[in-house]
Amino acid sequence: MRILVVGASGTIGRAIVAALSGNEVILASLRSAAIKVDIADPGSIQRMYRSLGRVNAVVCAAGQAKFAPLAQLSDADFRFCLDNKLMGQVNLVRFGFEHVEDGGSFTLTTGILAQTPMPGSAAISLVNAGLEGFVRAAALEAPRHIRVNAVSPPWVSETLQALKMDPSQGLPANTVAGAYLRSVTGKETGATLQPSP
Amino acid sequence: MRILVVGASGTIGRAIVAALSGNEVILASLRSAAIKVDIADPGSIQRMYRSLGRVNAVVCAAGQAKFAPLAQLSDADFRFCLDNKLMGQVNLVRFGFEHVEDGGSFTLTTGILAQTPMPGSAAISLVNAGLEGFVRAAALEAPRHIRVNAVSPPWVSETLQALKMDPSQGLPANTVAGAYLRSVTGKETGATLQPSP
Repeated sequence: MRILVVGASGTIGRAIVAALSGNEVILASLRSAAIKVDIADPGSIQRMYRSLGRVNAVVCAAGQAKFAPLAQLSDADFRFCLDNKLMGQVNLVRFGFEHVEDGGSFTLTTGILAQTPMPGSAAISLVNAGLEGFVRAAALEAPRHIRVNAVSPPWVSETLQALKMDPSQGLPANTVAGAYLRSVTGKETGATLQPSP
Repeated sequence: MRILVVGASGTIGRAIVAALSGNEVILASLRSAAIKVDIADPGSIQRMYRSLGRVNAVVCAAGQAKFAPLAQLSDADFRFCLDNKLMGQVNLVRFGFEHVEDGGSFTLTTGILAQTPMPGSAAISLVNAGLEGFVRAAALEAPRHIRVNAVSPPWVSETLQALKMDPSQGLPANTVAGAYLRSVTGKETGATLQPSP
């Protein structure tokens, strides 16, 4: 398969690329990848797709949202989260349909805070849950048997380690990547896949 | 109790006002209410709160979002939905905390399409699910024992009738209003309440 991975240079993105070995994988990210793309910029997404030719799958592990106490989140912070992790991934789907082969797939990234929030996660929980709602609905209208899923990563061991937290509270990135592989190669659509050990 | 109902002039809003009889209910809506408010405009929300004095509860049955085939939803349509039903209600909470008494509550409106989408609901499903995620998270950070819930109305009989559809597929507005009453008078927080017959 020919697979576009957006956000290929992050911890999860690199693990996804490794899990997809044997396929023709095209790497895209904000920096340091074959294709530069800023998903917060609709024009950047459209330029990426035009330069790409058709693919069988689009996988997105990109998308920023701000973790901060609700009382400190500004109007601009919410706008940033909506433009970036939320509409960035929605637009990858909206603008991407015509660039994906029949029976292909989109796999977006939400996160555990969608369903299991914590203080500081109000904007992220909003964005992640909104993406899960979008994926459920968009799957019903995807043309040509294209599937649309999300993966909801838990805490990732490597990220916890970098934050000097207990990595055993998370799953290794290569385990998380398995859920993306399942979305790309499986039959599910409209689903939010939970990585499991 | 002193209760602000935003969106008081809609089908559900009027039923909520009726269900809250015996309380001091302050009506707000885009048109035709004591207080005019456009929840898509953050300044309008802040002016409403400044004019209001403190309340025990804020109930919102306002919020617009566009139902249309995904392929026909424009960038501007998504922006409209995010600014109106989504951030409009998020901002009612963010800007409202300081105007709500200790132990008070916010009750927002999502909808059945959050979890049970249909073709045409991509933007609405996104907004409704996003609100449910926000409510789960915001409840954790609400000060002074203030509670934050949502109600997820099913199809409403009166609305179905107005659309010349089978009203028996929905719940009457006064039944739906019971869930709002439960949010205002109960102990739950961070919950999305489902009206039941």
